[in-house]
Amino acid sequence: MRRIYMDHIAATPVHPQVVVAMLPYLKDKYANPQSLHSAGQEALTAIEEAREKVAELINAQPDEIYFTASGSESNNFALKGLALAHQSRGKHIVVSAVEHQSILHSAQYLEKLGFKFSYIPVDKWGMVDPQQVKKSISPETILVSIMWANSEVGTIQPIVDIAQICREQEVIFHSDAVAAVGNIPVDVQTAGVDALSLTASQFYGPKGSAALYLRKGVRIVPFIDGGIQERGRRAGTENVAGIVGLGKAAEIAQKELENRTAKVKPLKDKLLQTLPQAVDHVKVTGHLEKRLPYHASFCIEFVEGEAMLLSLDMKGIAVSSGSACTSRALKASHVLLAMGIDHALAQGSIVFSLIDDNCQQDIDYILEVFPLIIERLRNMSPLYTQYLEEKRK
Amino acid sequence: MRRIYMDHIAATPVHPQVVVAMLPYLKDKYANPQSLHSAGQEALTAIEEAREKVAELINAQPDEIYFTASGSESNNFALKGLALAHQSRGKHIVVSAVEHQSILHSAQYLEKLGFKFSYIPVDKWGMVDPQQVKKSISPETILVSIMWANSEVGTIQPIVDIAQICREQEVIFHSDAVAAVGNIPVDVQTAGVDALSLTASQFYGPKGSAALYLRKGVRIVPFIDGGIQERGRRAGTENVAGIVGLGKAAEIAQKELENRTAKVKPLKDKLLQTLPQAVDHVKVTGHLEKRLPYHASFCIEFVEGEAMLLSLDMKGIAVSSGSACTSRALKASHVLLAMGIDHALAQGSIVFSLIDDNCQQDIDYILEVFPLIIERLRNMSPLYTQYLEEKRK
Repeated sequence: MRRIYMDHIAATPVHPQVVVAMLPYLKDKYANPQSLHSAGQEALTAIEEAREKVAELINAQPDEIYFTASGSESNNFALKGLALAHQSRGKHIVVSAVEHQSILHSAQYLEKLGFKFSYIPVDKWGMVDPQQVKKSISPETILVSIMWANSEVGTIQPIVDIAQICREQEVIFHSDAVAAVGNIPVDVQTAGVDALSLTASQFYGPKGSAALYLRKGVRIVPFIDGGIQERGRRAGTENVAGIVGLGKAAEIAQKELENRTAKVKPLKDKLLQTLPQAVDHVKVTGHLEKRLPYHASFCIEFVEGEAMLLSLDMKGIAVSSGSACTSRALKASHVLLAMGIDHALAQGSIVFSLIDDNCQQDIDYILEVFPLIIERLRNMSPLYTQYLEEKRK
Repeated sequence: MRRIYMDHIAATPVHPQVVVAMLPYLKDKYANPQSLHSAGQEALTAIEEAREKVAELINAQPDEIYFTASGSESNNFALKGLALAHQSRGKHIVVSAVEHQSILHSAQYLEKLGFKFSYIPVDKWGMVDPQQVKKSISPETILVSIMWANSEVGTIQPIVDIAQICREQEVIFHSDAVAAVGNIPVDVQTAGVDALSLTASQFYGPKGSAALYLRKGVRIVPFIDGGIQERGRRAGTENVAGIVGLGKAAEIAQKELENRTAKVKPLKDKLLQTLPQAVDHVKVTGHLEKRLPYHASFCIEFVEGEAMLLSLDMKGIAVSSGSACTSRALKASHVLLAMGIDHALAQGSIVFSLIDDNCQQDIDYILEVFPLIIERLRNMSPLYTQYLEEKRK
């Protein structure tokens, strides 16, 4: 059976060169980077080289990069750390309604500590209106956090406009760029963001290795307290191999970004155009142009996302019906609901997110298999039977 | 030049079988464990198998193990998460004066939130008196956190007695067992602890992979908010390879613990006995019997730890002068000061912490080289010159 992995938003494969770069730090080079002996120094040099590569990918300075263990940790660090550091100026924070759970649940944590949140709605394409952000900012506002791109619907937000508003209003701006960095150009200088989350496992690096960019001079309360690692802002023995892997993945992403885009974008476009023709009652979710190049997402009426996903899996095709971080919760996506998609349709969400190994034959195979799966699932759906009967009347 | 690594407390090497176990999850098995497709299921199965192995090592149930990214994260999670979850019962917490910085700095964080801490002193061997713990417990006390063993001086605490007191007083008991687990028998059932931190990089597993044991039924506030990973208590895409490595390291540690101890303990004893004979003005730090089997630590008068460490490094010997997490801070150790060692002597701290590759020849080489290094360093020390002059009078 043909095997197709199209679940980039859950995790990319690890680039073979990344594994090669990591291996010495799992084998002979095992010293702790904080150790003062030469073996420790060697490990420290390796993580500082990785820091430079990550900085270069997003046009930051190396000492603006803090290594963490996941995009979720970076988001917790940013939201909680910036809120606590700047609370003397105010306790109001602005986020969008379509943020990742690591932002929204950190918001709930902060609400218990007395912080107030505004949740900016999105339009039917999942897009935030910068003017809504502007209107929500009050003298009490200390922080705005809007994601760079949404992994469930692919929509890329107007980050530059939002950043400019934040700068004018003298409010710190954080962006969860986990789905974006390494996949589309992200430049923290030209965008004008103050803080930004990224993770290796979204651009062919290892899981368990991520980072927070924090503009020099922006105060933050450490998230993990303890030793002096990461300039005293994130304690814990460094995951040297993971950090080296993140650095290598950043280096490769910078070189390969255009090639990768040139490869996946036409395939994604093909899926977005052709799948709604091959199957009835299909809605493309997210913005059609302002969209991650690897991302094709749909809601399919009269079918459940999980059933589609498992049926596709039986045909060798690995995809998601939404965020991996909540997939086992089996709830309708808050992102789709925020876009005004009704609950029943939101249950039929499916995301084809391409990796650079995918090819035209993969798309052909999906377009061959998917309509048959939908037909079979719909034939088992009481709602679909009811729909057909009503149509017949 | 002979190369000797004797810096176990900073990081152990990774066991070759651990690397072999990890590799598939850096290569072909790259799926996200939360993905519902079969590739995701396979990754999920791998982390659940690792969870069983970690649980088995400390005689816990698998669903009492929460994977984290470092011992420091586990300590932050335990202290902050338990404090916040149980604050309605009281806001007093008891820790020892010789805890790791990740406990002491988490305490400072909690103090800002209105929690009160008692810091239990230690005796000259670095030992906590369980009766002091008992006396410090008040009706307001919700949590006691005392480390299992101290990585700077090797002393093993009377955990069973402290746990019993906490049980009698109905106070939650957490132990930072980072230096102990995988190196000495740790059984959470017979010890009667409620929560316990451990890390792979202290028993031949990879860096960036650790865990918190939490007894079933004990409430905790999540530390990283977000997705539903780790049963909703620790969000973030799992470091699958790291977790598999931790599992494998736990499996090997369980099998090899006795062999490893049989190997390192006589070498450690030799160092503890012989080094103070080979060099004048040497004080063994920590308890002589209740001591980690791989751990020999000293304070050398009239020399600075860092100078010794760098001189030893030039002879191919990698050791520490204290905790790697604070080594670059170059401050006198709070552990040694708490044991009543004066500031000047505490600066002369040196820790030889053995790994299972060390052998008798390593000890012989150290005993040959070390006295010469000390002599050379002392000859450059104004304090030593002054001491000799006073002695001559």
